[in-house]
Amino acid sequence: MKNKREENELTVAATTKVIRFDEFGGADVLKLEEIPLVEPGAGEVRIRVEAMSLNRADALFRENTYFIQPTIPGSRIGMDAAGVIEVVGANVMNVKVGDRVMTKIGFDVSKYGAHGETAILPSQFVIKYPEFLSPPEAASISAPYLTAWGALKDFGQMRQGDFVLITAASSSVGVAAIQLANAVGAIPIAVTRGASKKRGLLEIGAAQVIVTDEENLSERAREITGGKGARLIFDAIANGMLETLSDAASAEGIIFIYGSLGASGALGQTPATIPLLPAMGKQLRFWGYNNYALAASPEKLERGLDYIFNKLRSGELKVRIAKTFPLEQYADAHRYLESMKKQSVDFS
Amino acid sequence: MKNKREENELTVAATTKVIRFDEFGGADVLKLEEIPLVEPGAGEVRIRVEAMSLNRADALFRENTYFIQPTIPGSRIGMDAAGVIEVVGANVMNVKVGDRVMTKIGFDVSKYGAHGETAILPSQFVIKYPEFLSPPEAASISAPYLTAWGALKDFGQMRQGDFVLITAASSSVGVAAIQLANAVGAIPIAVTRGASKKRGLLEIGAAQVIVTDEENLSERAREITGGKGARLIFDAIANGMLETLSDAASAEGIIFIYGSLGASGALGQTPATIPLLPAMGKQLRFWGYNNYALAASPEKLERGLDYIFNKLRSGELKVRIAKTFPLEQYADAHRYLESMKKQSVDFS
Repeated sequence: MKNKREENELTVAATTKVIRFDEFGGADVLKLEEIPLVEPGAGEVRIRVEAMSLNRADALFRENTYFIQPTIPGSRIGMDAAGVIEVVGANVMNVKVGDRVMTKIGFDVSKYGAHGETAILPSQFVIKYPEFLSPPEAASISAPYLTAWGALKDFGQMRQGDFVLITAASSSVGVAAIQLANAVGAIPIAVTRGASKKRGLLEIGAAQVIVTDEENLSERAREITGGKGARLIFDAIANGMLETLSDAASAEGIIFIYGSLGASGALGQTPATIPLLPAMGKQLRFWGYNNYALAASPEKLERGLDYIFNKLRSGELKVRIAKTFPLEQYADAHRYLESMKKQSVDFS
Repeated sequence: MKNKREENELTVAATTKVIRFDEFGGADVLKLEEIPLVEPGAGEVRIRVEAMSLNRADALFRENTYFIQPTIPGSRIGMDAAGVIEVVGANVMNVKVGDRVMTKIGFDVSKYGAHGETAILPSQFVIKYPEFLSPPEAASISAPYLTAWGALKDFGQMRQGDFVLITAASSSVGVAAIQLANAVGAIPIAVTRGASKKRGLLEIGAAQVIVTDEENLSERAREITGGKGARLIFDAIANGMLETLSDAASAEGIIFIYGSLGASGALGQTPATIPLLPAMGKQLRFWGYNNYALAASPEKLERGLDYIFNKLRSGELKVRIAKTFPLEQYADAHRYLESMKKQSVDFS
């Protein structure tokens, strides 16, 4: 009993370091701040964070160019993380102290942002992950795999024999899409700008690679698909790309747009143009996508995670981690992410 | 036997008048030409045309700005018609001489175009229509009702309580969409430019009318829908409209684009812009639509026609005919259609 009380006293006095920002802007606005360690409220859990991953959404959120608006000053940040439950609040049923969990999308990021030494989250936004995954792997699943699964597998009903054209194919979501296409027996066609990434894309499973510096995207796509075009297109570029992708799409093709790397400004600042003749003639669907849609459907989210965990276990999917940073260099990780974004525009 | 031979001799010598054009262009290219009356081949039927209807597609086809290309010189024209079977070729099972039929979309219009005194068609492109319909009514069903049914009911799964926003609401397809929304218990919101059409739209069943000369479309749409936005949007304007419609759409809303009245040129010459932030944030679907998709699925087409015939019988749908012309004034009918098109841009 004595020990317990001491622990409690220690907890009350303790502090924790978390990432916060007080103004919108570049990576410089991010601060690692020491704050009191508070207890989770009813329905909440506190996790000791073991690994975090960055998504482009984190950078956009920080700039206030994402579709979810941060509350400043003092906004937290971070959607994807993995850790161990260290305290559970009242009425928490789904997890217990000591469970290794990863975050699920859909929570209020400004309030609960998961990047820091610890994070408090509503318990429905954490889920136990299988033991065969390391914390960095668990922290890297949500954005790439759920985005690809939600668009291609769930909404797009991707199936054996489907041609799936993937732009910005070397990005984490692009790689996830290639793996997922192979997992269902579909035929992933990777699109990359320069020849330098061709070999790598073939190695991770692209059936074909179209190098747009050297080849005409839509001609090659029609050639590869025997004239039919791709039924599913998974696009992160949007601006300046949708005309070409419309040519590359099959009748009733779906063009999922989950990013706008082709925009001159930030996400959505530049509208994209769609060509109406093929849009109507081929009945194309231009389908804006972000994986928050899954957050709105817990049953669907669970189905997606089950599928992804199973395929990670079998090795059909395989998490790839580009680079690891210590928490102290959190802002540098954002800078690295943004240099990769530029690269992916320049070279894929 | 003697009579039969005489009939045959007469038939060989007979002529028929049909509409043809030898070059692309305005209504002036259309000619009513007398040609030999030929017999249908195997699998074909000849109909004595009793009524025809014009669609915007006919005008675009004539201009070669439709997504199906005419073969000139000597292209036939006309997708929608109703008539009586007067001769059946070998191996025709679905209809017999004397049947009153309407055309179904999907045939080679340049070769089989149905506008004229007679038309020869592959037998799968004619269907018997119920007796309670007059020939002009039967000829006016395909484009408006199948377009609205195919987009809203079949693909869009329109159901009770859905808010359905309809632009160019006074057009024949717009009116069909309003009727169809009411038939399933959805809530049709008609969008029109000037106040002059408001009363008429309310009379044919619009639950609400937004007059864009006087009201902010997206604000009013959000107000009417209690802040949610419309789940289904049925749009004939496209260019300059999709930003506003994106604001008016609900999360996971579908914006069907079946026309481009907002384009400065002909169909599809001007690309339309879509706003990426709401597109991704709300996961909007911009869905190009034309009812040829139904032609590719005979089972679906039959389901659509069954539904439409039943609702016409019950009076929930009601064919409205704007104006009637004699065949000799066929080109004038095209001119009238195109003046209506202009009006519908100007006034609805």
